[in-house]
Amino acid sequence: MRVSRYFLPILKETPREAEIVSHRLMLRSGMIRQQGAGSFSWLPLGKRVLDKVCQIVREEQDRAGAQEILMPTIQSADLWIESGRYNDYGKEMLRIRDRQDRAMLYGPTNEEMVTDIFRAYVKSYKDLPLNLYHIQWKFRDEVRPRFGVMRSREFLMKDAYSFDLDYEGAKAAYNRMFVAYLRTFARMGLKAIPMRADTGPIGGDLSHEFIILASTGESEVFCNKDFLDLPVPPADVDFTNDAEIGGVVSEWTTPYAATDEMHDEAAWAEVPAEKQLAARGIEVGHIFHFGTKYSKPMNAKVTGPDGQEHFVSMGSYGIGPTRLTAAIIEASHDDGGIIWPESVAPFDVALINMKVGDAECDRVCEELYAGMTAAGREVLYDDTDQRAGAKFATADLIGLPWQVIVGPRGIAAGEVEVKNRATGERENLPISAVPGRFGARR
Amino acid sequence: MRVSRYFLPILKETPREAEIVSHRLMLRSGMIRQQGAGSFSWLPLGKRVLDKVCQIVREEQDRAGAQEILMPTIQSADLWIESGRYNDYGKEMLRIRDRQDRAMLYGPTNEEMVTDIFRAYVKSYKDLPLNLYHIQWKFRDEVRPRFGVMRSREFLMKDAYSFDLDYEGAKAAYNRMFVAYLRTFARMGLKAIPMRADTGPIGGDLSHEFIILASTGESEVFCNKDFLDLPVPPADVDFTNDAEIGGVVSEWTTPYAATDEMHDEAAWAEVPAEKQLAARGIEVGHIFHFGTKYSKPMNAKVTGPDGQEHFVSMGSYGIGPTRLTAAIIEASHDDGGIIWPESVAPFDVALINMKVGDAECDRVCEELYAGMTAAGREVLYDDTDQRAGAKFATADLIGLPWQVIVGPRGIAAGEVEVKNRATGERENLPISAVPGRFGARR
Repeated sequence: MRVSRYFLPILKETPREAEIVSHRLMLRSGMIRQQGAGSFSWLPLGKRVLDKVCQIVREEQDRAGAQEILMPTIQSADLWIESGRYNDYGKEMLRIRDRQDRAMLYGPTNEEMVTDIFRAYVKSYKDLPLNLYHIQWKFRDEVRPRFGVMRSREFLMKDAYSFDLDYEGAKAAYNRMFVAYLRTFARMGLKAIPMRADTGPIGGDLSHEFIILASTGESEVFCNKDFLDLPVPPADVDFTNDAEIGGVVSEWTTPYAATDEMHDEAAWAEVPAEKQLAARGIEVGHIFHFGTKYSKPMNAKVTGPDGQEHFVSMGSYGIGPTRLTAAIIEASHDDGGIIWPESVAPFDVALINMKVGDAECDRVCEELYAGMTAAGREVLYDDTDQRAGAKFATADLIGLPWQVIVGPRGIAAGEVEVKNRATGERENLPISAVPGRFGARR
Repeated sequence: MRVSRYFLPILKETPREAEIVSHRLMLRSGMIRQQGAGSFSWLPLGKRVLDKVCQIVREEQDRAGAQEILMPTIQSADLWIESGRYNDYGKEMLRIRDRQDRAMLYGPTNEEMVTDIFRAYVKSYKDLPLNLYHIQWKFRDEVRPRFGVMRSREFLMKDAYSFDLDYEGAKAAYNRMFVAYLRTFARMGLKAIPMRADTGPIGGDLSHEFIILASTGESEVFCNKDFLDLPVPPADVDFTNDAEIGGVVSEWTTPYAATDEMHDEAAWAEVPAEKQLAARGIEVGHIFHFGTKYSKPMNAKVTGPDGQEHFVSMGSYGIGPTRLTAAIIEASHDDGGIIWPESVAPFDVALINMKVGDAECDRVCEELYAGMTAAGREVLYDDTDQRAGAKFATADLIGLPWQVIVGPRGIAAGEVEVKNRATGERENLPISAVPGRFGARR
């Protein structure tokens, strides 16, 4: 893509309303535009990142055996009356009346609807385990939306819902999602730590928040430093092997980790002082076993091997891709701007022409643009007539992993400069070596 | 994907509420589930088709120079008050009050919001032409939603919006979308005919509906048979060449074509009788130039080369991927079920094991499943213990382009049977030849 044709509205001023760094950087880099209270448009640069985040989420859900569906945003109130939540859910639920005066709502979550889908079709334990997920817009009418897409009213969510015959099956399903989440966040360059979360009236210990450490995080967290070295399972981890998956979960739930809310001073005191890590964190995912909370009131049953009917045991598993995009920035930026991990970068390479109009600079840039594109890299070619300093600032701000800088002096030596955005390292490379420099895409 | 693990709820009964064939087949094949009046969930098989439809739309929008953004579903009423449409828009608009009693609405269309985005950033003709599109859920509160996803209340729409300095620029932008639409529908196996549509108070001739011919179509259309042989531009058509693109549009707007609404008996009489084609059609896209209708009230101006400010000249370009999915079925089915064009088929191949449990059948199927997958084909492997007849019926119903049928008798001869779903042609192939049989994916 050529910057001269790209809708990339870079803001020079730091927007006053933005309280946290990800919000500032997303506005400044032209990723998003605020449309109203807690409501944002995703502009081309932001949309590319969001798509990549969603794609990683999707691949890891699929790998773990979940199946993608797509439920509507607007729901009838009927199912919520059936589950008993219609009156309990607070003002965060956006309630709507249609032209026939039917009670509807903009889905803040989808347990009811997915349970309705399940009970309509699935009657036997032979069709289990089943895990259905979707990536869809949700709306929660927060009193005070803030922090940009980190806490907006309309936001994108991946919700997965698992259905199993019994607790043992549900626990295995929970563990698969646990491991899928480890892989999902690791692929985005995040160090996410699973922390036990409140299970409320459900009880048990099958509820975890995945927290990334970031100095700008919203809450205080406590964990054992051992987490930082724990290995994340590889892509060929066997999701059909309950023991193997359970082993990973066990490994990742043994060291101490807790949010402020669940913090246990006595257990914390037992962590060796040099292993204690108290930091700030951002929640990027939440997985939760809730058993028969919805299957009972909504009568979602299957026949078991015993010939009896059983209410299915369920769990839900959420990741917010819009929020996650901001969280990645919170975890990966510097004074110059965003530092995208390669896996979610909107483009791989910023190709910077320092002297547009110079025949040699233009020629080399066109060659490199074509060559890197042919090599499978996504290139954003700054072919505008801005001065070089502004181009460097923009490239740092939007945070593509690599910058390829083409100027007359380098060309005279047959070279261009390659800068690594994350480390700041620069190297001079022969022009012909550039297209092969960055390896194959992921 | 193995059918034994796939959420594919095939219905044996024909649902009574479904009036048209696409609705019946989408329900029967487990593509969708109705959630309420004019509201549908997309189940795994349907979601795969919808994704492929969206991807083709996206690729052709990008090729024509449009840029993808994503605007929220919920809009503030303010912009609509500014454009003057808030009170004019009828009861189809879903009006909402949030917890602060602010007037909001579920976007039935996005001219106002995209104009607001434009005016916030673009100030000079040098940043034109610009075409921004998004693929997002919309809601129109139809009195009587019907025909499944063909006329639902919540539906997915690709809307593109073009911004140009003047009419000439806007016309070139219009022509690019015209050609992009020709390519989009052709890639989905559809013969879409552009028909002049009413321009209302805007006037001029820059409004076309794209209509596919289908005996179950909702409206009567009239066209010259010459359309059926007109060539669709190839992928390397030069969208930067206004003359070339204009030439294609000219070619595709010269023969007579009109919907019932715009039908001109006098012009029709001049079409030679043997060229007259009166048929039924389904609208699958609509492109529309509306000049300064929104830029004037919303004050969206750019400075021109003359140093003066000009209200930008705009157009909008819609395709409904959810509706389009149904339209493809209307155009391509038989008594047995759906016949998917390869480009949008949920899988390429139905691999049918006629005798699950037979060691040789199982072994050959596993080999072929792995082999075809490795060759880049998407395979749905029916490994269930249903009888062969039911498997054949399901394969015909869900309409994958190819069926590979593995039975003991064929294996004894070293062969399997390959059936072409569209033509019904069958051939026996040596087992080893199967993975290479279907060529490279698209």
